[in-house]
Amino acid sequence: MLETFANPHPHRDYLIEHVAREFTSLCPKTGQPDFGTVTVRYVAAELCVELKSLKLYLQQFRNRGIFYEDITNVILNDLVSTCRPRWMQVRTRWTVRGGMRSVITAEHGEPPGIVR
Amino acid sequence: MLETFANPHPHRDYLIEHVAREFTSLCPKTGQPDFGTVTVRYVAAELCVELKSLKLYLQQFRNRGIFYEDITNVILNDLVSTCRPRWMQVRTRWTVRGGMRSVITAEHGEPPGIVR
Amino acid sequence: MLETFANPHPHRDYLIEHVAREFTSLCPKTGQPDFGTVTVRYVAAELCVELKSLKLYLQQFRNRGIFYEDITNVILNDLVSTCRPRWMQVRTRWTVRGGMRSVITAEHGEPPGIVR
Amino acid sequence: MLETFANPHPHRDYLIEHVAREFTSLCPKTGQPDFGTVTVRYVAAELCVELKSLKLYLQQFRNRGIFYEDITNVILNDLVSTCRPRWMQVRTRWTVRGGMRSVITAEHGEPPGIVR
Amino acid sequence: MLETFANPHPHRDYLIEHVAREFTSLCPKTGQPDFGTVTVRYVAAELCVELKSLKLYLQQFRNRGIFYEDITNVILNDLVSTCRPRWMQVRTRWTVRGGMRSVITAEHGEPPGIVR
Amino acid sequence: MLETFANPHPHRDYLIEHVAREFTSLCPKTGQPDFGTVTVRYVAAELCVELKSLKLYLQQFRNRGIFYEDITNVILNDLVSTCRPRWMQVRTRWTVRGGMRSVITAEHGEPPGIVR
Amino acid sequence: MLETFANPHPHRDYLIEHVAREFTSLCPKTGQPDFGTVTVRYVAAELCVELKSLKLYLQQFRNRGIFYEDITNVILNDLVSTCRPRWMQVRTRWTVRGGMRSVITAEHGEPPGIVR
Amino acid sequence: MLETFANPHPHRDYLIEHVAREFTSLCPKTGQPDFGTVTVRYVAAELCVELKSLKLYLQQFRNRGIFYEDITNVILNDLVSTCRPRWMQVRTRWTVRGGMRSVITAEHGEPPGIVR
Amino acid sequence: MLETFANPHPHRDYLIEHVAREFTSLCPKTGQPDFGTVTVRYVAAELCVELKSLKLYLQQFRNRGIFYEDITNVILNDLVSTCRPRWMQVRTRWTVRGGMRSVITAEHGEPPGIVR
Amino acid sequence: MLETFANPHPHRDYLIEHVAREFTSLCPKTGQPDFGTVTVRYVAAELCVELKSLKLYLQQFRNRGIFYEDITNVILNDLVSTCRPRWMQVRTRWTVRGGMRSVITAEHGEPPGIVR
Repeated sequence: MLETFANPHPHRDYLIEHVAREFTSLCPKTGQPDFGTVTVRYVAAELCVELKSLKLYLQQFRNRGIFYEDITNVILNDLVSTCRPRWMQVRTRWTVRGGMRSVITAEHGEPPGIVR
Repeated sequence: MLETFANPHPHRDYLIEHVAREFTSLCPKTGQPDFGTVTVRYVAAELCVELKSLKLYLQQFRNRGIFYEDITNVILNDLVSTCRPRWMQVRTRWTVRGGMRSVITAEHGEPPGIVR
Repeated sequence: MLETFANPHPHRDYLIEHVAREFTSLCPKTGQPDFGTVTVRYVAAELCVELKSLKLYLQQFRNRGIFYEDITNVILNDLVSTCRPRWMQVRTRWTVRGGMRSVITAEHGEPPGIVR
Repeated sequence: MLETFANPHPHRDYLIEHVAREFTSLCPKTGQPDFGTVTVRYVAAELCVELKSLKLYLQQFRNRGIFYEDITNVILNDLVSTCRPRWMQVRTRWTVRGGMRSVITAEHGEPPGIVR
Repeated sequence: MLETFANPHPHRDYLIEHVAREFTSLCPKTGQPDFGTVTVRYVAAELCVELKSLKLYLQQFRNRGIFYEDITNVILNDLVSTCRPRWMQVRTRWTVRGGMRSVITAEHGEPPGIVR
Repeated sequence: MLETFANPHPHRDYLIEHVAREFTSLCPKTGQPDFGTVTVRYVAAELCVELKSLKLYLQQFRNRGIFYEDITNVILNDLVSTCRPRWMQVRTRWTVRGGMRSVITAEHGEPPGIVR
Repeated sequence: MLETFANPHPHRDYLIEHVAREFTSLCPKTGQPDFGTVTVRYVAAELCVELKSLKLYLQQFRNRGIFYEDITNVILNDLVSTCRPRWMQVRTRWTVRGGMRSVITAEHGEPPGIVR
Repeated sequence: MLETFANPHPHRDYLIEHVAREFTSLCPKTGQPDFGTVTVRYVAAELCVELKSLKLYLQQFRNRGIFYEDITNVILNDLVSTCRPRWMQVRTRWTVRGGMRSVITAEHGEPPGIVR
Repeated sequence: MLETFANPHPHRDYLIEHVAREFTSLCPKTGQPDFGTVTVRYVAAELCVELKSLKLYLQQFRNRGIFYEDITNVILNDLVSTCRPRWMQVRTRWTVRGGMRSVITAEHGEPPGIVR
Repeated sequence: MLETFANPHPHRDYLIEHVAREFTSLCPKTGQPDFGTVTVRYVAAELCVELKSLKLYLQQFRNRGIFYEDITNVILNDLVSTCRPRWMQVRTRWTVRGGMRSVITAEHGEPPGIVR
């Protein structure tokens, strides 16, 4: 489902960040909806993630039961296998549950100098 | 009381953060209630902290008299002995007392690269 | 438990507001702690509410199970019967539960002109 | 699905507000998810809205296609017919679509003095 | 260009607000671009403004030279003649020019009670 | 120095607001610079204030010694005698001097309904 | 100690506001320092309050023990007897004590139309 | 179109930042307008970018269809070839599209010590 | 006057921060009051600073004339000689004087790894 | 015009920051006023900058035409030659001109460890 396009400036390490503020999935334990923000930051190699397909990809989790820790790594794995970036980070921030909010951050590859 | 579950992605160092904004304990000197926020950040090894048990664990301090400096280290010690993380940080932020607010931060282990 | 002192300026309608940001009680259904802010606004007649006794009065709810709607009216009733104000308003604002936050507002008497 | 409980203080006009920040439905035109906040404010007569049932009621719209203007009035109608309040207001605030954000506000009954 | 749809709840006065944060036109004096936010608030009679056509209508000003005071009234006139609302307000807020920012507000009709 | 242009929509009462955030004059007592924000709000009759001439007019105070209370009324008088509005308000907000900040507000005429 | 100067525009009702953010006095019970903000808003008749003398007047409370409710009315009384305003309001906002912050508001006279 | 002027202090590495908050271009896919902020940060060698020409240069994109990733690198390339800086960074931040906002960051050269 | 207690966790480097937002002293030149915030951050060795004695210690400066630069170092010296920390930082932030605000930061010892 | 006083604690590297939020000069091209904030941060050697003389020094630019890039370096040079600091940084932040705001940062010397 995720689509890519050719990196228009492949000879330069530059940083791309997409923030999806309207993410929702289900809690696998209670079936209750979870709400959060998904931030994808990466330095592309040959391929960039196409924005609309990213939106549709993230919508697939709408009615799927999956834990915070797991979903963050699953999104990272799916994106890495699709666009093979030099470096990528996925961060999910979740709204309050039981008086607690959570943030999960996973990375693939060594961060280039542009990532400070 | 603290429960754990198996880290679903043990081969990757990723960062987990839980922020409990509704923490309260008692001042051991005056018996007056203290209010604060407890932030737990860690990189798991084999085990992750189960969220609901973390909530219940933190509620145990509700009617217990304990100093800021002590409670921060006690929470860190309890969590470390339960889930044996690669790295963990506990930070407590307290509301104003006598015109002063306090923040205590304690860590266990060396912070991996994902912690910047 | 609530104490009062003589209004030092009884011939003028003036507005007094106390905001207790560290309020906690228990949910009567689940036994889980609730957290909120209690705002008391009033125009005194002969008596003012003594601040320290107000703090201690509010602490009494710490381990008591009581619903949002009820507690707001109970606090208003207790304060009104203690200091007989010209007008009084009690507002409770609660932290997020199940993705929802609540605010309850109850008043006693007709608001004088100073209350705009 | 909506449940009620007996108003514990029926002889006083007081204001109840519930803000559900995690609301989502579907756009009936495009099938794309909409995200928003639903605020319910009311002065109860004999019955109050039970919070958990309100949460579950609002979750029913998760996979239902309905326009902003319609959903606001539908929620108001459902709540009014369930708890017969003296006055009720429903406001929905929606996230940005096509560079625009929307807010819809509908009311039932004449606002009592407590609503300023 | 502006399109309408039948008001789904014509028997109730309710308030609709659309905020377009990405508005741009040209200064008729200097030809330089102006940037602003357009807020439309109205109580519909028989017809509601269709959102996508509102977006396209506002984009028509992108390369048109027109003064702040004029554009606000022109938008109001166009919308009123299209959807014949019970009441409508158009407000434009402009970014800083020469160290000054401007806000223009125009209304059509008497505001109903829902507009407080 | 102040210039005007013909009100393009003289048959409707609409509200115009200009906020000049970069105002400076001198304290007549100490010769030290004062800094503030000048907000002009008005409902035009036949004439509107031209923005660039308003900017230049306000710059005239740059090296002039004048008190807060006086300057607010002087600006109002000058603008009123130039454009004869249905209603006008001038508000000046000043930065901190001696630990105090000041706000002065003066009006001309009765506020029409559009001013709420 | 409070000084006045002749109102430069006595024929117009205009609003003057001074906000002293650096106010401190002592608690008469404990001797501990209190900290707050004092806001004076008034419509002058013949006399305006001179700013520097207002600053020095407020500094007099630095080492004086006086309750919140009392000090607000004392400041109002002193200012009213010095400058005989058409209307005056004094509001004091206090920093947190025992988890509570307080705001006291007292007025003299009927608010003119400029006070909305 | 971009103009330069001689760096007035060429013997010192110092940091220059210009933030254009009113940038707009077109989406090459849909023809719809995009809105964003362009931040240029650089350490000059012999030449500085003239501000007004930078404004006019950025306005050229107003009716041009170009992707986020491309435009960021194009602006960087144009500026680098015009003023040959020791180091330069271009960052574009875009408003929400499809519930997502994006930030693209590209650099030329090694950042000197002044860039921390 | 400053009191200490035994560090309850001396075998771990952890960070303690106290922020006193209600600090006041006198300007030695003009005798006018200064207002500021004092932040103390430290990693304890054997001894921790007792909070109430810290509050009383800081109140000693209330009627003492001392410059910003001096007071910051004096507080640091007094605290270091009392509790002999591994590392300590004192930062004072002052409110606006003559249109300028100041911040002074002094440290003792090398910052351990916990201080990032 | 700039005056100094002997560093009261010359044996310790500590950081001094003064922020002048009320800076104004003239644009040498158009003669129009520029407004900004000047931040001076330094680690003193033998001499500290006297605050009142710094204020008067900065006021000298009020009616002087000078470019952003130039003024930042001129202020740094003047301060360095007056007080010979171990390290000094001058940053100027300017209000919006033509839809763009600018920040210029220049330094003298190598930053000591206290500057993080």
